[in-house]
Amino acid sequence: MNTSTPEARLVQALTGVRQHAPLVHCLTNTVVQQITANVLLAVGAAPAMVDHPEEAPVLAGAADAVLLNTGTLTAAQVQSMPAVARAARQAGTPWVLDPVAIGTLPVRTSLARQLLDLGPTAIRGNASEIAALAGAGQGGRGVDSTDSVEAVLPAAQALARRSGAVIAVSGQRDAIVSATRTTLLTSGDEKLTRVIGTGCALGAHTAAVLGAARDRDIDPHDAVLAAHAHLGAAGSVAGRRAENIGSFAVVWLDALDALEPAEVAGLVELTELTDDARHA
Amino acid sequence: MNTSTPEARLVQALTGVRQHAPLVHCLTNTVVQQITANVLLAVGAAPAMVDHPEEAPVLAGAADAVLLNTGTLTAAQVQSMPAVARAARQAGTPWVLDPVAIGTLPVRTSLARQLLDLGPTAIRGNASEIAALAGAGQGGRGVDSTDSVEAVLPAAQALARRSGAVIAVSGQRDAIVSATRTTLLTSGDEKLTRVIGTGCALGAHTAAVLGAARDRDIDPHDAVLAAHAHLGAAGSVAGRRAENIGSFAVVWLDALDALEPAEVAGLVELTELTDDARHA
Amino acid sequence: MNTSTPEARLVQALTGVRQHAPLVHCLTNTVVQQITANVLLAVGAAPAMVDHPEEAPVLAGAADAVLLNTGTLTAAQVQSMPAVARAARQAGTPWVLDPVAIGTLPVRTSLARQLLDLGPTAIRGNASEIAALAGAGQGGRGVDSTDSVEAVLPAAQALARRSGAVIAVSGQRDAIVSATRTTLLTSGDEKLTRVIGTGCALGAHTAAVLGAARDRDIDPHDAVLAAHAHLGAAGSVAGRRAENIGSFAVVWLDALDALEPAEVAGLVELTELTDDARHA
Repeated sequence: MNTSTPEARLVQALTGVRQHAPLVHCLTNTVVQQITANVLLAVGAAPAMVDHPEEAPVLAGAADAVLLNTGTLTAAQVQSMPAVARAARQAGTPWVLDPVAIGTLPVRTSLARQLLDLGPTAIRGNASEIAALAGAGQGGRGVDSTDSVEAVLPAAQALARRSGAVIAVSGQRDAIVSATRTTLLTSGDEKLTRVIGTGCALGAHTAAVLGAARDRDIDPHDAVLAAHAHLGAAGSVAGRRAENIGSFAVVWLDALDALEPAEVAGLVELTELTDDARHA
Repeated sequence: MNTSTPEARLVQALTGVRQHAPLVHCLTNTVVQQITANVLLAVGAAPAMVDHPEEAPVLAGAADAVLLNTGTLTAAQVQSMPAVARAARQAGTPWVLDPVAIGTLPVRTSLARQLLDLGPTAIRGNASEIAALAGAGQGGRGVDSTDSVEAVLPAAQALARRSGAVIAVSGQRDAIVSATRTTLLTSGDEKLTRVIGTGCALGAHTAAVLGAARDRDIDPHDAVLAAHAHLGAAGSVAGRRAENIGSFAVVWLDALDALEPAEVAGLVELTELTDDARHA
Repeated sequence: MNTSTPEARLVQALTGVRQHAPLVHCLTNTVVQQITANVLLAVGAAPAMVDHPEEAPVLAGAADAVLLNTGTLTAAQVQSMPAVARAARQAGTPWVLDPVAIGTLPVRTSLARQLLDLGPTAIRGNASEIAALAGAGQGGRGVDSTDSVEAVLPAAQALARRSGAVIAVSGQRDAIVSATRTTLLTSGDEKLTRVIGTGCALGAHTAAVLGAARDRDIDPHDAVLAAHAHLGAAGSVAGRRAENIGSFAVVWLDALDALEPAEVAGLVELTELTDDARHA
């Protein structure tokens, strides 16, 4: 049993990213590649984005962490992603699945289920995407969620137990769910939902913290939580500095870059829902 | 006959976007996907960008509006775009064609003509692109126009009558042209031409207003005009706040987010050229 | 022998870009397309980005300069890039090779060697990429360099003599190397390495200056140096105005737009390493 507080472990996880500068290989959607790369650089990680089926598995074997995001699937990505997931698994490299907009869109829904069977370390999505992956819903309206985080918790918990992955459900409050633990995170600012790529970049940041956590005896649940706390805390800071989304996007990146791990812990509210919470 | 003023209809059209939050499915070029998505979010719409030939027509059937932009055509887009246009037409969903850089580049020129036959609700381009689509010119220099808006008006009017689409010609002044009406719009700032994607994002915003207008008895001509006025008005505001293009791009997004529809109407100048103008 | 100072030639080269507005055709990676286009617009050039194998060679024949960047290679780019290089060569159009992340990734490493044989006007990369292209190293860690600029100078000089290209090695100091001349450039700010795309945009700016230099009797070595000085000088200005990378990226674009060529020359330090330096 880990007797440190969740906040202390969050600080430890984020400090690890600054120390280790993990190389995060992202197969992600073209809409958000730039902001995803800048978020990784802001938090202290190094981005790499290679999709080509003959190159992506090579890079995955050398990276510290991998992100697979289904937002703008190409034929090359449909071919590369399972190979990358296998290469990551073989190398013991943590990888994150972000099943963007699955549900009614056929190629990504089928691919996400195939990737689920390859054992992701973590899965990040909105409530509708998590429900669809868990077999409990039909997905949302395009990239928007039509379900609430709270409504999808039982499905997320079942998915966590079945897959062994940490499930992160993004919403007004975030829920981080693993087989025996559920943490609710209150942080952020409404404007985060009106800047493209903040959610997708969160998937990449989650991979970064997992990559740095691997050699540091940090629990994946704490690593996933730390990434979400960092992005949300930066959102809170940015929301106080900027009223509209152009400036908000800029000062949010500034805050991701500037915030010390201990400051992040002070800007978020964590609620442990399960038995484990009493020991924390 | 609509007895309200063009300005009142413009306010009504932009208010509809904030109320309806239309889902705008964009098959667009990768250079401008991020700014296009952020512009859609700033004006109150929801972006979705799916190119895969097995998914794009599915999403088009569920979206409120569609944008087809030929800027960085891929083989997948060449296959998807006609299917998406047909799916939109079948669902009664408005769709916008932005024939970027047609003229001498063979694949997009041929594709744009094919799409024209599928009945776009609106077509947006610079003078050279509109001239090329109308069969009256050879296109511009890459993405730049070598023709003036005024010189291309007869070709745009002929194209509007032949196709039934609203034709929007972007330039120092914009011209919105439909079969029986031509409106000139004076707005904006020269720096808009030096930030990548402002024109392509205008195509997406045009789709958004058309999507929200569908159930609101708003004329497509007024909807197209409203989108152009909004982007131009935000350009005027940004031009007064920022001298150089880095900051300009940020405060332009801020202004798109902040401006109330009535403020937009006060920041632009409309000139109706046709007989209809006298009744407005 | 050119008796003007390197600084005077730098001013002349950058002035040429503002006067000529060269059309720069970029086949580049999707992560950096937006910032690359905005950098080209900020410095006075016009961007165009067309990858389709049936279109890219057509546009290359009409452009003033071409950039080939291997960052996110697609099958279409693998097919287009050699054809574009040949079209540029045939038209006498300068072209720049940016061999992003070559070394262990097989497709781009093989492609970059093929492109090298087609006679690029300039090659820009970090030390590991230049070493890998010269056959003197194994490449870096993804897109990061694991070699230093100084360590790779002999390999860069050999590559310059063998290929006839100007070789630009980016690092803490930049080295501009041609067959008989090596110039070290001190400029910039550490934060440039933490904003995605500043290096890739430098490749595009290099192409822009070469494109404008063609009809101006400006030596390619001076043109390549001018682009590097401009981006570094803007970095210095931005580094004094912004502490974190979100704001830094914005004011860096502002500075690229605002700086006069003579101001650029005053913000950088040039050191000529070879015999030619004594005549400068």
